[in-house]
Amino acid sequence: MLNSEIIAVGSEMLTPQRVDTNSLYLTDQLNALGIEVRRKVVVGDDRALLADAVRQALQNAQIVILTGGLGPTEDDVTRDAVADALGRKLILRPELIEQLEERFRRLNRKMAENNRRQGLLIDGGEALPNTRGTAPGQWVEVDDRVVLLLPGPPHELKAMFANECLKRLERRVPPQVIRTRFFRVAGMGESDLDQLIAPVYSKFANPTTTILAAAGDIQIHLRARGETEDEAERLLNEVAPPIEALLADRLYSDNGDSLEVVVGKRLRARGETLSVAESCTGGMLGERITSVPGSSDYFVGGFLVYRDAIKTGLLGIDPALIAAHTAVSAEVAQAMAEGARARTGSTYAVSVTGEAGPESSTGAPVGTAFIGFAGPSGSETSRLNLFGDRSGIRNRATNSALDLVRRKID
Amino acid sequence: MLNSEIIAVGSEMLTPQRVDTNSLYLTDQLNALGIEVRRKVVVGDDRALLADAVRQALQNAQIVILTGGLGPTEDDVTRDAVADALGRKLILRPELIEQLEERFRRLNRKMAENNRRQGLLIDGGEALPNTRGTAPGQWVEVDDRVVLLLPGPPHELKAMFANECLKRLERRVPPQVIRTRFFRVAGMGESDLDQLIAPVYSKFANPTTTILAAAGDIQIHLRARGETEDEAERLLNEVAPPIEALLADRLYSDNGDSLEVVVGKRLRARGETLSVAESCTGGMLGERITSVPGSSDYFVGGFLVYRDAIKTGLLGIDPALIAAHTAVSAEVAQAMAEGARARTGSTYAVSVTGEAGPESSTGAPVGTAFIGFAGPSGSETSRLNLFGDRSGIRNRATNSALDLVRRKID
Repeated sequence: MLNSEIIAVGSEMLTPQRVDTNSLYLTDQLNALGIEVRRKVVVGDDRALLADAVRQALQNAQIVILTGGLGPTEDDVTRDAVADALGRKLILRPELIEQLEERFRRLNRKMAENNRRQGLLIDGGEALPNTRGTAPGQWVEVDDRVVLLLPGPPHELKAMFANECLKRLERRVPPQVIRTRFFRVAGMGESDLDQLIAPVYSKFANPTTTILAAAGDIQIHLRARGETEDEAERLLNEVAPPIEALLADRLYSDNGDSLEVVVGKRLRARGETLSVAESCTGGMLGERITSVPGSSDYFVGGFLVYRDAIKTGLLGIDPALIAAHTAVSAEVAQAMAEGARARTGSTYAVSVTGEAGPESSTGAPVGTAFIGFAGPSGSETSRLNLFGDRSGIRNRATNSALDLVRRKID
Repeated sequence: MLNSEIIAVGSEMLTPQRVDTNSLYLTDQLNALGIEVRRKVVVGDDRALLADAVRQALQNAQIVILTGGLGPTEDDVTRDAVADALGRKLILRPELIEQLEERFRRLNRKMAENNRRQGLLIDGGEALPNTRGTAPGQWVEVDDRVVLLLPGPPHELKAMFANECLKRLERRVPPQVIRTRFFRVAGMGESDLDQLIAPVYSKFANPTTTILAAAGDIQIHLRARGETEDEAERLLNEVAPPIEALLADRLYSDNGDSLEVVVGKRLRARGETLSVAESCTGGMLGERITSVPGSSDYFVGGFLVYRDAIKTGLLGIDPALIAAHTAVSAEVAQAMAEGARARTGSTYAVSVTGEAGPESSTGAPVGTAFIGFAGPSGSETSRLNLFGDRSGIRNRATNSALDLVRRKID
């Protein structure tokens, strides 16, 4: 497989406000060609540091792409730094200067003297026309490797990459087909999941397996490469079905759909509706459900019952029940779900009550939460011991509530 | 000036979907200490490549910070790679294993065998306690340089950096005094704001001015550096008061407090309470208010009235009112706020109804929203024309609702 490295150039990208997003576009394009991105680097406008970065990149990657630093000012050091790294000269190309002057004429502007720097080409390199701006790009071959100099402004970069680089890169890549699977899993910690499935995936370098975890929601990306569709499919099938079997009903999606989308699709298909009653999550559960366009097909609404008096007032929960068990209890979770279902007339209702911290209001440890579920065939509750800060606990409780709904309407 | 380099570790950060945002937080903190970030690198879970990156970083920077790759799985190679780069051994520290086991015991969970890897410390290094997760960090001195291993999850990283690293790094930096001001502004677009205040701040390189905008909420960071407190204060005062005057009542915070914190503090100080009635935001407003610890002091609860029948059923809104004006109207927004206030007994109630898109259900253009406010001295409504995608519209509507409450209880 071909390897690439992306180097973003510009001191502004070393400030606390800016990220390099050009590399996301480039990664997407390169991956689609079957080229891996092994490393990304951000360097300021520093000629010596940048030349070092180029030298290092050429040790790791067959394709090195630099973005930015091709402007007309003294700060724009990419041309000089790459020339230094390759030990080559910069050559002023009169035809590039003419094209620049022509461009300025068309815009009725006079070309500044420093724009002439944009006519400097690395010896042996080829200029890549820029249809959206002044700075030409450069394609420089170094033995079997390529160094690409592209402009920093995203619209210039994208047009130049699509028009001038894609086809040439494609010709350097052995033909291959990619097949992917995108699993999502609820109700497991990352290390438990890894212990369960590592014996399967760690035997294979192809497909690659990437595991991402966030607050009780785990994503597993499988990516198989083959010379033919059959081969890619066969490679994927060595890993995907065994992982599916191990995860069993903890697997809620095999196409990357989120929990709220999975739950929504099932409700819509069944023509059924859902309501919520939230205490510690304060609206997060409703917010997640309604983040899906068209959720009004199955979500009717619900109750934010943050204070005990409101649990009583809006949902008719007996104050004696709260007094006997506290608001953070299976009994109150169940009464909340039943109260929401009765008052909205929804097919199902789900509730959350818990201690999100940092302080406990009922004496139950922070992280204790109860989920309630009510439907036509009765009610049930589930107790959770969650970890994390306030936001983590609320996110995990929300995921657990959505996951309980998913399991109940399977 | 001291130099640093930040290395983010994790193959997921080399996908087209993910950027390394930890480095933004770290850059902000390091810059505030007077430490420059010279280079940022993203490397996948590849031990040899990562070891190379650490060796290269130590040639350029006195402070090398790695984030991520400290988890319990085989993929987590940061400990090994740094040990390789420094030519040092990893040593299993029984006291770290005990702390990990103790943490799992407190959560009533059994520690997986592979978590023991998190008890490996680089020879000569010092463990940094992780109050938010399992992976301890590491502080490793190499002659006059420092290599820092920090966890990848942002809340773990931030807590560890603030608690364990800031003071130690400060001792390595030549003394200078920093004075900052952190303004927040609602109800203005970014370019309007910039046009208003640029004539003030653009005259000064010190203090630096940074403007960040997100869905109807703008942050302005001012940062003055001086050799003495007086000098830093004097520099800051050339810019901060004129900006405050220009922003007038659109400025809602001068210490970085969020809208929900500002509103919460005012309600608590006045001993008053708030409830919500949400349609298109589906819980986002309640979620924001209850994201603040202690919000039960002033937030009682509310209603998610997504469907029209639920607006009628739960809040008693006359179906004829909805038929006459549609659910996305000032009349319905007002009835929602009044209904929530009457049913919860809160001092104030705020409501949101609108078209979040992608389709309109009432015929009103996507982005149309109405905010309602009800209090002891009556009700009022506000009409919004918001832009953005579904998530952007919901976020802007939520900010506008919180800002209306702020202005009403000023």
